[in-house]
Amino acid sequence: MIRVGIVGGTGYTGVELLRLLAQHPEVQVAAITSRGDAGVPVAEMFPSLRRRVRLKFEDPAQANLRACDVVFFATPNGVAMEQAPALLDAGVRVIDLAADFRLTDLDEWSRWYGLPHASPEWAARAVYGLPECNRAAIRNARLVANPGCYPTAVQLGFMPLLEQGSVDCDDLVADAKSGVSGAGRKAEVASLFSEAADNFKAYAVPGHRHLPEICQGLSRIAGSSVGLTFVPHLTPMIRGIHATLYARVKRETDFQTLFEQRYRDEPFVDVLPPGSHPDTRSVRAANVCRIALHRPGQGRVLVILSVIDNLVKGAAGQAVQNMNIMFGLRETEGLWQIAVLP
Amino acid sequence: MIRVGIVGGTGYTGVELLRLLAQHPEVQVAAITSRGDAGVPVAEMFPSLRRRVRLKFEDPAQANLRACDVVFFATPNGVAMEQAPALLDAGVRVIDLAADFRLTDLDEWSRWYGLPHASPEWAARAVYGLPECNRAAIRNARLVANPGCYPTAVQLGFMPLLEQGSVDCDDLVADAKSGVSGAGRKAEVASLFSEAADNFKAYAVPGHRHLPEICQGLSRIAGSSVGLTFVPHLTPMIRGIHATLYARVKRETDFQTLFEQRYRDEPFVDVLPPGSHPDTRSVRAANVCRIALHRPGQGRVLVILSVIDNLVKGAAGQAVQNMNIMFGLRETEGLWQIAVLP
Amino acid sequence: MIRVGIVGGTGYTGVELLRLLAQHPEVQVAAITSRGDAGVPVAEMFPSLRRRVRLKFEDPAQANLRACDVVFFATPNGVAMEQAPALLDAGVRVIDLAADFRLTDLDEWSRWYGLPHASPEWAARAVYGLPECNRAAIRNARLVANPGCYPTAVQLGFMPLLEQGSVDCDDLVADAKSGVSGAGRKAEVASLFSEAADNFKAYAVPGHRHLPEICQGLSRIAGSSVGLTFVPHLTPMIRGIHATLYARVKRETDFQTLFEQRYRDEPFVDVLPPGSHPDTRSVRAANVCRIALHRPGQGRVLVILSVIDNLVKGAAGQAVQNMNIMFGLRETEGLWQIAVLP
Amino acid sequence: MIRVGIVGGTGYTGVELLRLLAQHPEVQVAAITSRGDAGVPVAEMFPSLRRRVRLKFEDPAQANLRACDVVFFATPNGVAMEQAPALLDAGVRVIDLAADFRLTDLDEWSRWYGLPHASPEWAARAVYGLPECNRAAIRNARLVANPGCYPTAVQLGFMPLLEQGSVDCDDLVADAKSGVSGAGRKAEVASLFSEAADNFKAYAVPGHRHLPEICQGLSRIAGSSVGLTFVPHLTPMIRGIHATLYARVKRETDFQTLFEQRYRDEPFVDVLPPGSHPDTRSVRAANVCRIALHRPGQGRVLVILSVIDNLVKGAAGQAVQNMNIMFGLRETEGLWQIAVLP
Repeated sequence: MIRVGIVGGTGYTGVELLRLLAQHPEVQVAAITSRGDAGVPVAEMFPSLRRRVRLKFEDPAQANLRACDVVFFATPNGVAMEQAPALLDAGVRVIDLAADFRLTDLDEWSRWYGLPHASPEWAARAVYGLPECNRAAIRNARLVANPGCYPTAVQLGFMPLLEQGSVDCDDLVADAKSGVSGAGRKAEVASLFSEAADNFKAYAVPGHRHLPEICQGLSRIAGSSVGLTFVPHLTPMIRGIHATLYARVKRETDFQTLFEQRYRDEPFVDVLPPGSHPDTRSVRAANVCRIALHRPGQGRVLVILSVIDNLVKGAAGQAVQNMNIMFGLRETEGLWQIAVLP
Repeated sequence: MIRVGIVGGTGYTGVELLRLLAQHPEVQVAAITSRGDAGVPVAEMFPSLRRRVRLKFEDPAQANLRACDVVFFATPNGVAMEQAPALLDAGVRVIDLAADFRLTDLDEWSRWYGLPHASPEWAARAVYGLPECNRAAIRNARLVANPGCYPTAVQLGFMPLLEQGSVDCDDLVADAKSGVSGAGRKAEVASLFSEAADNFKAYAVPGHRHLPEICQGLSRIAGSSVGLTFVPHLTPMIRGIHATLYARVKRETDFQTLFEQRYRDEPFVDVLPPGSHPDTRSVRAANVCRIALHRPGQGRVLVILSVIDNLVKGAAGQAVQNMNIMFGLRETEGLWQIAVLP
Repeated sequence: MIRVGIVGGTGYTGVELLRLLAQHPEVQVAAITSRGDAGVPVAEMFPSLRRRVRLKFEDPAQANLRACDVVFFATPNGVAMEQAPALLDAGVRVIDLAADFRLTDLDEWSRWYGLPHASPEWAARAVYGLPECNRAAIRNARLVANPGCYPTAVQLGFMPLLEQGSVDCDDLVADAKSGVSGAGRKAEVASLFSEAADNFKAYAVPGHRHLPEICQGLSRIAGSSVGLTFVPHLTPMIRGIHATLYARVKRETDFQTLFEQRYRDEPFVDVLPPGSHPDTRSVRAANVCRIALHRPGQGRVLVILSVIDNLVKGAAGQAVQNMNIMFGLRETEGLWQIAVLP
Repeated sequence: MIRVGIVGGTGYTGVELLRLLAQHPEVQVAAITSRGDAGVPVAEMFPSLRRRVRLKFEDPAQANLRACDVVFFATPNGVAMEQAPALLDAGVRVIDLAADFRLTDLDEWSRWYGLPHASPEWAARAVYGLPECNRAAIRNARLVANPGCYPTAVQLGFMPLLEQGSVDCDDLVADAKSGVSGAGRKAEVASLFSEAADNFKAYAVPGHRHLPEICQGLSRIAGSSVGLTFVPHLTPMIRGIHATLYARVKRETDFQTLFEQRYRDEPFVDVLPPGSHPDTRSVRAANVCRIALHRPGQGRVLVILSVIDNLVKGAAGQAVQNMNIMFGLRETEGLWQIAVLP
């Protein structure tokens, strides 16, 4: 059994981690911390976990996280870079679900997150946890930077094209739509039901924090820098991301086959048959990315539709997938739930 | 491995059965039928099942259901009573998720369903599949009538009180609210998103088909006939039933303790601490009924709040629970998923 | 033209007041205040009002509210009782949309609102602004206490029965369901989209602040004290209240006719034909209460279904209706919008 | 008073037309037809219209539409081209809310709609009813082809750029999201609440019927043919379209000023300040298009956000606007309702 700790378990990625880990046959959740809710039983805050999670939130200062094999940080940006190094130095492996270790250019990190980085050494050693392009490095990683939700959907959608060099990398467009849980369990007016329901809007068009992460990832995949226009939107659903990707074809190939072959052995990427339109609900509560390709009017623009559950393949599920890889488990262990539809 | 057949798999209870059975370690789904969609791969209609269910819908006339150990009927009312008897006579056990075998008074059945009953013999032999009050009979049943969704939530909420005789049975009120999936996957204007979203309404107040089933069940539990006012409502969510139950106290007792003791050993009924208000989402996609009790103003009216997922504990999950009991499996086998929240 | 001031315009009742008043032919909105957002153009916070409302929020200390003919308080509970008296003494008429002046028993007020009352004199002089039972007094009122949303739906549903004495007043049940905007535009976790969407729950079953207001109103109508069990619920829609009311018949009469005659001349109460089930969307954004009656199984329980838009007939619309009465305008002036459906 | 007839009033554009026309001071709705629901009072089908619309649906064969000044067709595609010519020949003016007269290339029309066109003469004489670029022709039109919902949002968003020739017309992208009411009030599984709620998907990516209409409109505006990739999506809200438009800048200018000047005198197009993100709810139930411009990273791609209510500015409201122009009324007459928010 792997002894797991969770730092910051009161948000949506925290409760989703608990849902997955409590059902994982090789895991024992040993501790979960929350500064504000220390002493509260987890199942009191999240009654969905009654009878299944008997832990209480512990004060971070008290919790014996060093006795864990791996610690997940499900904290706001800026916490893991402060607290993870001590654990790492003590030999505990760490998976950070926040953004602290995702960017290699720390000046850029500081520009977007408004802080100096507290741990450049560990930022340099962190492995970007997108298994579909980084599996080998993850295996031995001590610190995994779990990708953001938008970056996961967008990178998986563009990846085969950029690896092959078959599209023009200067003018990529990613028009992405997210459910409201992506904003987290924070009391903010913009995320109220009465603001977000029966409504649709773009946000952060001048610049979203996931933009540098996506550009870094796509550039790495392409082997050269890419030009991307990224527009995120808020859609009135709880979970789910739908990325609609546009790329101009530079070199013809059989794109459907390209995608099918690229992802043939991936347990968590599903390329749909030609003509498909993936629903976000087809991945609800499941660790899957479903992708479909279109070539409208047989023109030069390729349209890729890529959907994930932002809390699973876009956060907690991918984190558990990374843990499975790091500890030599079957990659699908504890992650084989079927999507909940309807 | 139990060989399972499903008749009528294109509705919401059908796809939910598939979700649960495909993850059940002791089950092999051998056949699934659909008159209208014979030949279509199940996962084409329900992409959530891709890579997990490789069956095609078969024509009911072709499917070898007699080779199954148990057949689930997830068909409209009136089908099972026609088709189940031949299977039963061939030794196959049957669980009917429709209403065909739920009422013992067949005249009443005919009044509500507008048909003569096609199989009075089997109606007489059917066991009402509410495990919490009927477990022993289910064990040996050849034919189980799986309860309706409203009847499950209402009976579990009133059961301890009626067993004890502690409330006035003449004036029970059940004000129940259902998600829209309760109306099924039928193309009807009233169930359209644009009709049902951002809207709330009562329906069938003069009389709903679940009323005689609930009255029969409550009367059986109470040992005498009960008077019930039952008002169902449609609420803009996909899954979930919330029953708000009102009863006048006749004999004082510690009601919280009464409920806790009654359900202490039930794996799928969860009595919440005093003062609680169960959310339907706390049981979303899980086979659980959560119950809370209130005594507003310390008056003589007891308010019981009872929530289930109408497609799980109110349909497919309870059917699998019945199957587990019938085949001597652990009752929780394949039914131990944690609710999906948020 | 009536010069109108609004204190506290940044909540949902505030913006709804603005929507209605900006379209009212006899009104000029002269000032709107907000402590936190002074200086911000109203239409910047609520773009729906662009080109139609050119005011900025003013600091309450600066705004010249004394020059207004009437001031609406759309503030949290406890503000109007502090600030309204000075305006009233200066001859300005006041309509309070909060609860400060709704209860005549100020000890009870203090128990529910946790404060001593700041203005017992004005509390004693306030007129309860439910036009359907209090029109004459409203006409000359200097201070109107605009009813709460639940109290409006529940009182209009029970009123004809209690006036006639035809039901048992000891065991009334009001099972009420509200859209989330009833919780206001406050940043609270429980009102987040990801908490409230696709979910249904009861809340405040041990006691809701609207209970004493409803009991006071019903008792006044009945001429003697009533016994009421009131259970409010949260339903995933933005606007709307659906009250399902239960009463035992004490004296037979033609209830449909009773209701139709009672409300024949009421412009904003619509009694539906027998057998109807009013949708909340049939009153969305309109100042109407629609009511239907049922007698399930011809038993002794009468079921009344009463729907309003909580922000209109349950708040801002009723406030404007009161203003129309107070200033001798046609009661429907500025309130004749048709409900938005779908 | 203008005497108005409506053919096909049982869909969402029909009821929305009624909502607007019943509140229009210069209009009398004289007749409304429905083949299937002849004899049914309109307000029985749509209780939101109770006390406000006293008409019954009439059989199309009986209704005296020739006595009308103008007839709106709110029918499925293919009806108006059959029935409108006789009315037109009798001197009645016609506004068709369907697609029958929108395309000038009738071969293309037939390809997309699967029918030969029944009235090429009237198709040639029809005026495309987008007032912002066609006002003069509408004034004298006998037959107006009211634009589609997507075409309205997309054309208004691109118009100033194409008129000026400031963007590359070969690679326009329109990523559009629609509420579910766009699919109409037809009983179809895909539009069920349980299918469309809490879900997001693209549809018709290989080709949507609005594509040729948009291309025709944009080409006309640009003065040369354009290349457009158009991807429509379904989003879980009732009303609203959000079009996210992408164009590469060819010639620099002050785009914000360009848009503001272009639409300065338009009563129903609102250009938001720089940095804005229009919500669809800011136009809910109102006849407005709100537009915002962005230049992410100061790169060469311009992002335009354009929102409308698909049933108002995208259908019934625009039809009434066209009527106002045709009959010399103030263009805003009867269309000045403020959006319903929240």
